[in-house]
Amino acid sequence: MKENAIGVFDSGLGGLTAMKELCRLLPREDIVYFGDTSRVPYGTRSPETIIRYTRQDLNFLSEFHVKAALVACGTISAVALDKVKDEYPFPVIGVIDSAARAAARCSENGRIGIIGTPATIKSGAYERILHEIAPQCRTMSIACPLFVPLVENGHIEKNDPLIVNAIELYLSQLLPFRPDTVILGCTHYPIIAHTIGDYVGDNVRLINPGREAAKTVRDMLNVRGLLSGRETGSHRYFVSDSIENFETLGGIFMRRSINGEVHKIDIEKY
Amino acid sequence: MKENAIGVFDSGLGGLTAMKELCRLLPREDIVYFGDTSRVPYGTRSPETIIRYTRQDLNFLSEFHVKAALVACGTISAVALDKVKDEYPFPVIGVIDSAARAAARCSENGRIGIIGTPATIKSGAYERILHEIAPQCRTMSIACPLFVPLVENGHIEKNDPLIVNAIELYLSQLLPFRPDTVILGCTHYPIIAHTIGDYVGDNVRLINPGREAAKTVRDMLNVRGLLSGRETGSHRYFVSDSIENFETLGGIFMRRSINGEVHKIDIEKY
Repeated sequence: MKENAIGVFDSGLGGLTAMKELCRLLPREDIVYFGDTSRVPYGTRSPETIIRYTRQDLNFLSEFHVKAALVACGTISAVALDKVKDEYPFPVIGVIDSAARAAARCSENGRIGIIGTPATIKSGAYERILHEIAPQCRTMSIACPLFVPLVENGHIEKNDPLIVNAIELYLSQLLPFRPDTVILGCTHYPIIAHTIGDYVGDNVRLINPGREAAKTVRDMLNVRGLLSGRETGSHRYFVSDSIENFETLGGIFMRRSINGEVHKIDIEKY
Repeated sequence: MKENAIGVFDSGLGGLTAMKELCRLLPREDIVYFGDTSRVPYGTRSPETIIRYTRQDLNFLSEFHVKAALVACGTISAVALDKVKDEYPFPVIGVIDSAARAAARCSENGRIGIIGTPATIKSGAYERILHEIAPQCRTMSIACPLFVPLVENGHIEKNDPLIVNAIELYLSQLLPFRPDTVILGCTHYPIIAHTIGDYVGDNVRLINPGREAAKTVRDMLNVRGLLSGRETGSHRYFVSDSIENFETLGGIFMRRSINGEVHKIDIEKY
């Protein structure tokens, strides 16, 4: 069981930002990544559709007898995780819980901003858990629907006028709330964290949920005695649409070229 | 057969711009619209996925015994139409052919610009047919991947900085080519035609493929003696994701509120 792989999945390739953190923290682990690129984005879909897709994603990862699964997607974690996680024999770790705890720990003025896809924001998942673990905190949540298409089309440089305009459009509402901590509630957002950071200012701490969830996976495997003892782990990647663009777009998210096999699968069969 | 419905379908709701033209031209016809909102967008997916989805869309419309189907989507028309249209007992009309003919008729200097989704542009479908019907024409094609998410998020006003920036980003490459005619090769683009028109100038004619295809459907039914004789046609709408946002987003594309029933279906079953 110790030598079984860890599964990581996302609606697309944004989850590779969490994969990257997991690879960095746990270099000895085999990791299987699934990106549902034929059905991306989930963030604008209805809850029932997101839940159905999530079951199929986890059914696929089950075939690898994974010892744990990391849901590297804010939308799935917010909308579907609680509905499906008990159906599987392995722990399924989302990005919401650890990110909310990290934000509550970091915030000194108790004012926490949350940005994410429309589905994540509409779910209220971050507020719910923050109000539970840190009832004194106040939150402000803003949906940023254009950040995903902008990142996926390569608008990630600091001076790119489209990303600068979009950040201003969405985050100008956040500044009067004076948050000292902002949760980047979508795995695409760490890619533009530098530009978001420039806009909100140095005194605002940005929380990367993929990084926090990767730490939670490490700690959970450690406590259960399930960390791998091998020298170096291998990485396998699966997508549901053509692998043609995977290396290019994947490179944006991993910030380096992808090492490991890439395969295409038919997710509708799971 | 004359009183059977006309089917219209699209990867999402952009095709409603073509639906609107068809309703205007043929007010006596029953029309069934299907928008594959659970799997939108098609424009960034691989050809094999687009072809599989298109078959499912047409299988669904077949259940209404439609007398004709209008493919109200640049991507499907460009990538999948030729592969699947002969599998159905009714004519399937795409947007490419009529728009290319209209552009060839309109252009005086023989320089035609084509803008569309990455899949439409990559397919080369517009160039192929233009070079066949008007070999003297020169073409320049530009993929505009952000126009769809911008329109779907309501960035459609003339002074919206994001749509203005995106138009400048994509179309600045087109101006030195000096086209006198530009094909709006995606059914979302007529919504921002005023802002595109401002940028390219009054002397450039913009072709709306949905309007041209609606005329082709009318002429084809007329020639075959298949136009309906009833007083007023009814309109039914089907989507594959939640109908919750249909009225709002649908209103953007129809430029008026939607009249007619709206139902949700499971497109994976077809």
